[in-house]
Amino acid sequence: MSSWTSPARSDEVPDRAENAHEAFDLDAALAHARRAARALPRSDRAGALEAIAQALLDDQDEIIAANAGDVERERAAGTAAALVDRLTLDGARLAAIAAAVRQVAALPDPLHRVLDGWTLPNGLRVRKVTVPFGVIAMIYESRPNVTVDAAALAVRAGSAAVLRGSSNALASNRALVASMRRALGGFGLPADAITLVDDPDRALVTRLLQARGRIDLAIPRGGGALIDHVVRTARVPVIETGVGNCHVYVHADADLDVAHAIAMNAKVQRPGVCNAMETLLVHREVASSLLGRLLGSLADAGVQLHGCERTLAIAAGEHDVERATEADWETEYHDLELAVRVVDGLDDALSHVDRYGTRHSEAIVTRSRAAAQRFQDEVDAAVVLVNASTRFTDGFEFGFGAEIGISTQKLHARGPMGLAEIVTHKYVIDGDGQTRA
Amino acid sequence: MSSWTSPARSDEVPDRAENAHEAFDLDAALAHARRAARALPRSDRAGALEAIAQALLDDQDEIIAANAGDVERERAAGTAAALVDRLTLDGARLAAIAAAVRQVAALPDPLHRVLDGWTLPNGLRVRKVTVPFGVIAMIYESRPNVTVDAAALAVRAGSAAVLRGSSNALASNRALVASMRRALGGFGLPADAITLVDDPDRALVTRLLQARGRIDLAIPRGGGALIDHVVRTARVPVIETGVGNCHVYVHADADLDVAHAIAMNAKVQRPGVCNAMETLLVHREVASSLLGRLLGSLADAGVQLHGCERTLAIAAGEHDVERATEADWETEYHDLELAVRVVDGLDDALSHVDRYGTRHSEAIVTRSRAAAQRFQDEVDAAVVLVNASTRFTDGFEFGFGAEIGISTQKLHARGPMGLAEIVTHKYVIDGDGQTRA
Repeated sequence: MSSWTSPARSDEVPDRAENAHEAFDLDAALAHARRAARALPRSDRAGALEAIAQALLDDQDEIIAANAGDVERERAAGTAAALVDRLTLDGARLAAIAAAVRQVAALPDPLHRVLDGWTLPNGLRVRKVTVPFGVIAMIYESRPNVTVDAAALAVRAGSAAVLRGSSNALASNRALVASMRRALGGFGLPADAITLVDDPDRALVTRLLQARGRIDLAIPRGGGALIDHVVRTARVPVIETGVGNCHVYVHADADLDVAHAIAMNAKVQRPGVCNAMETLLVHREVASSLLGRLLGSLADAGVQLHGCERTLAIAAGEHDVERATEADWETEYHDLELAVRVVDGLDDALSHVDRYGTRHSEAIVTRSRAAAQRFQDEVDAAVVLVNASTRFTDGFEFGFGAEIGISTQKLHARGPMGLAEIVTHKYVIDGDGQTRA
Repeated sequence: MSSWTSPARSDEVPDRAENAHEAFDLDAALAHARRAARALPRSDRAGALEAIAQALLDDQDEIIAANAGDVERERAAGTAAALVDRLTLDGARLAAIAAAVRQVAALPDPLHRVLDGWTLPNGLRVRKVTVPFGVIAMIYESRPNVTVDAAALAVRAGSAAVLRGSSNALASNRALVASMRRALGGFGLPADAITLVDDPDRALVTRLLQARGRIDLAIPRGGGALIDHVVRTARVPVIETGVGNCHVYVHADADLDVAHAIAMNAKVQRPGVCNAMETLLVHREVASSLLGRLLGSLADAGVQLHGCERTLAIAAGEHDVERATEADWETEYHDLELAVRVVDGLDDALSHVDRYGTRHSEAIVTRSRAAAQRFQDEVDAAVVLVNASTRFTDGFEFGFGAEIGISTQKLHARGPMGLAEIVTHKYVIDGDGQTRA
């Protein structure tokens, strides 16, 4: 379904019947979004989100009808059932989307917070205060709920949202954005605070990403190909999200029941997400005892296994394990598929993680304080876990009450991003005529 | 002196006698820098900087001799005297550079700080801890003291420094870096924690800026052309610095003595820096009384003036004021030169600042709480000052004890950047076998 990996599908056929419209005026849209953004910081943004949540429920029939068109076209195109399901909206899903908007409305305001403040010897009073970015662009794939999530988070954080979803969901996104814009207008806020780039032309993504001074922040959400495209193309500030080649390393002294439970949870509980485990590393001293049982549990759960030589020896034909290649250590399967490697110890595990990890989430299972400490100190990743599943790298699990993505970069935000990560700050200084000597 | 604005000088003649050497192996250098960076977080970085400061003093003769070659070549090339002076090192300047390194050594360690921490309902203990970026690239112009400053700040913050200075200062930078590397080695730390990109080939800058996963952060320091080049070229995370088209707005109710003092200080005290005022905006009600005196003071200080129609009317031939054009409102003069505009009020001033400002530093002079509040709320800039000179936007003035630049972007750091701005963080999580439901 990702148009970023399969070249040229609907993106190059912008004149299908349901897309017949004037060429989208991006420059005008960005100017309107900028103007709309000015009204947000001192408005009742929580109230506006309540109005949006209600509008989505009120407009349910229109939205579901529009979505049915997208779904039908994908089904006709032979898109895999699981992907069509991700695209599909019904009453229950729309209710969940509206509830999520209400949840964002209820979160504490991330703006106007004094993060720091002090008085200089010359009497100048300095405050560091949170302020909105201004205009936030979201470039994402497939699931139409991201359209609402992203808009709600941006507006709650005082920024206008410029949304570029997948062309597969264009009709759904149009209906959702139209509903949200009507709600903003009805609430007395400018509708342009939420703008859809309503044109499947791929060139608009490039123009959006290069609109220096007009887009304050761009956040891509999607697969590796999308993220890579955004990072290569962008001239505006970007927060990279979500590519996760995550490891669990089981140390020699691990509680093997804990290791078994964590490995199963990290791989099987939801394999299609970025914080799922993709490679299991096991200390050779416990490889037989752990893997003897775990390979079977994984296979029973439908996990396709790729193993190193020592893993193959342990499986001994009893479990169906393919020989792992270099590509397996590098691959984020995003599926019920796992690479397994027996390592000689912590050093070996750290080297493997350093070489193949994507700096997302890395876990160790150990009872040793020293091993835990060293793993936490030396692994360079957004989240480093001891005796816990990698699946906990998540804004909701962290208690942020929302999540706009998981940053895998080191600038600004790292790890799960909530409202606090999509605001910036400025310094305000109060003086009495001070000049510099 | 900036090779970024004048196309192709020494950058395209890499085979001058003093540059004759093997082509620089950037890939190897980055791999070595990465390895060296690993040793820094848990080393005595303050002690290493003390050793560097001492080495710079011990190696004074070699450094000054190398610098003399750079200076001589620039002088022969007819470079402006002020620029040659900026390039020149002598005993006093080297002593000041070494003292600055000692000052950085004495600052509190920015690493291993717990920024936040909490326990989740499931018992997971979460901590957000400061960690180094890893490898920081600095791309800068001219003054060789930046070579030492940048290296010292990076090392203090636990990152390896990869330095790309101006080709005009290549011999000076070589000598400085050689001295610092010897000091690191003598202190038992890897010399590769400080690396000079020792090759004037411009293509290396591009390769450096596109070394995704190998450079964790790039910071350009220099003029607008350099910054722009870096932002357009980079595929690695960048912090933009230093372009400042800064304004002072004098409101109708301003104390005119305060306004006079702030305007003079913001323009004259050091005109060649990014936090100097470039345009003065004056409320029409106080334009005659303020400018009647101020234009003369500015002219006496050697400031070349560009004024709007109303400013010209007030000058009335008494002061030498050129008619300002659109270009004047846009120009960061970096010199004893100023644009002056009479505005109708706060709205007009805010519009002008929004249109022409570079989001660096903006000041208002007023006695009105309401006007001050509105200016501070509505101006989108790194630093917004009330009754104080724009010249206070500075890491040392802010009390940071150091400054690696002034960020004009909204991501990660905004305004003056000290040590706290050149570290990142990770989340470390301690569990007892938790899995996600």
